[in-house]
Amino acid sequence: MTGKVVAEVSVSLDGYVAGPNPTLEQPLGKGGDQLHEWAFGLKSFREPHGLPGGETGPDDELVAESLRATGAIVMGRRMFSGGEGPWENDHNTDGWWGDEPPFHKPVFVLTHHAREPLVMEGGTTFVFVTNGLESAIEDARAAAAEKDVLVAGGADAIDQAISAGLVDELLLHLAPVLLGGGARLFDGVGPELPRFEVTHVLESPLVTHLRYRVVGAKRRGGRPEPTAAP
Amino acid sequence: MTGKVVAEVSVSLDGYVAGPNPTLEQPLGKGGDQLHEWAFGLKSFREPHGLPGGETGPDDELVAESLRATGAIVMGRRMFSGGEGPWENDHNTDGWWGDEPPFHKPVFVLTHHAREPLVMEGGTTFVFVTNGLESAIEDARAAAAEKDVLVAGGADAIDQAISAGLVDELLLHLAPVLLGGGARLFDGVGPELPRFEVTHVLESPLVTHLRYRVVGAKRRGGRPEPTAAP
Repeated sequence: MTGKVVAEVSVSLDGYVAGPNPTLEQPLGKGGDQLHEWAFGLKSFREPHGLPGGETGPDDELVAESLRATGAIVMGRRMFSGGEGPWENDHNTDGWWGDEPPFHKPVFVLTHHAREPLVMEGGTTFVFVTNGLESAIEDARAAAAEKDVLVAGGADAIDQAISAGLVDELLLHLAPVLLGGGARLFDGVGPELPRFEVTHVLESPLVTHLRYRVVGAKRRGGRPEPTAAP
Repeated sequence: MTGKVVAEVSVSLDGYVAGPNPTLEQPLGKGGDQLHEWAFGLKSFREPHGLPGGETGPDDELVAESLRATGAIVMGRRMFSGGEGPWENDHNTDGWWGDEPPFHKPVFVLTHHAREPLVMEGGTTFVFVTNGLESAIEDARAAAAEKDVLVAGGADAIDQAISAGLVDELLLHLAPVLLGGGARLFDGVGPELPRFEVTHVLESPLVTHLRYRVVGAKRRGGRPEPTAAP
């Protein structure tokens, strides 16, 4: 049994996964931190960041369950390097996530520049994939074994994965804020538009968690259909 | 006691309240009907449209409650006339909603062309307001007495009302579809961005109902603050 491919991201009411004018100090752009405010206090957020304590409860359990289910992560180059800006052309950066990134599993980074894998402390290895998103998802699938592959962002990577019919499930954390600009989710999806089925909604004071099954997308390219027995 | 000003609209996952290329036959644009599929079968939708039967249950109750609470409606000119197109320059149209529109209460239409109120069958009167959104909301407030004013769309009217600090509550019906283009909600909100508080979420198979209190918007222009007793 293979796992699912899940796209998970926090998004504003006006559809942005990052605000305008990102900088290295503020890689999520103006106001972008508000997208993640709901998570900062949770035990399941604090623990992988090496922080003690934190809240438990339904939000925490949802995040913890996502972490448990995920075997490997796919992300765009800017999510690795810390947003958009001059530094993103430094192809030898160790990324924006510090010596011990909070992932603790293999992370496949989409890039145009080949380089050796980067082994960080705490179980995170950044693997750089130069031959496209489908290939990155296939590599992540192999690394994840029976667990899920998480497409973590940015908007471009998620849009590409949805457009290619590679996403089984979408998990949105809908934050009750407007950002007014930035990186908008779904703008790059097409030309065929998938449909979604609501599979789970979790109400919470600071965010609404929305889980969808992706249906009606085109057949996924990289994964052969099971064939009937001869 | 005066009622609230509520902006209520169905919106796609990618933030559109109508799809691309609206026509008089398809005023909600390509794919736009999908935004309202969740409602078509409900008793509370069918009844005001003069149709028998329909489903009851939590979705129906939410819609029925919104109808009961609403005393008057504000809408943009295109929502009155049936979308964007040559016909919208016909300033004597009786609108797109038929002889007996489904509103059954006063509807204040934003327009640049003064004309007499249009009394329709079944209790709907279209009143044409030429001096702007704030004035339309004030007129609607007077007509609604202690009931709520509903800002029903389009995106422009809702964005303007939010920007002016005139909206107390936002009720989104989030449909699990992408439209890929059309009229996007929130694009015209600014320059100040309000914050929202999640007050109620109702999960349903075809839609997610999200109710927000609007907070942190600028002081409403048209409504004096209560003053302390001298």
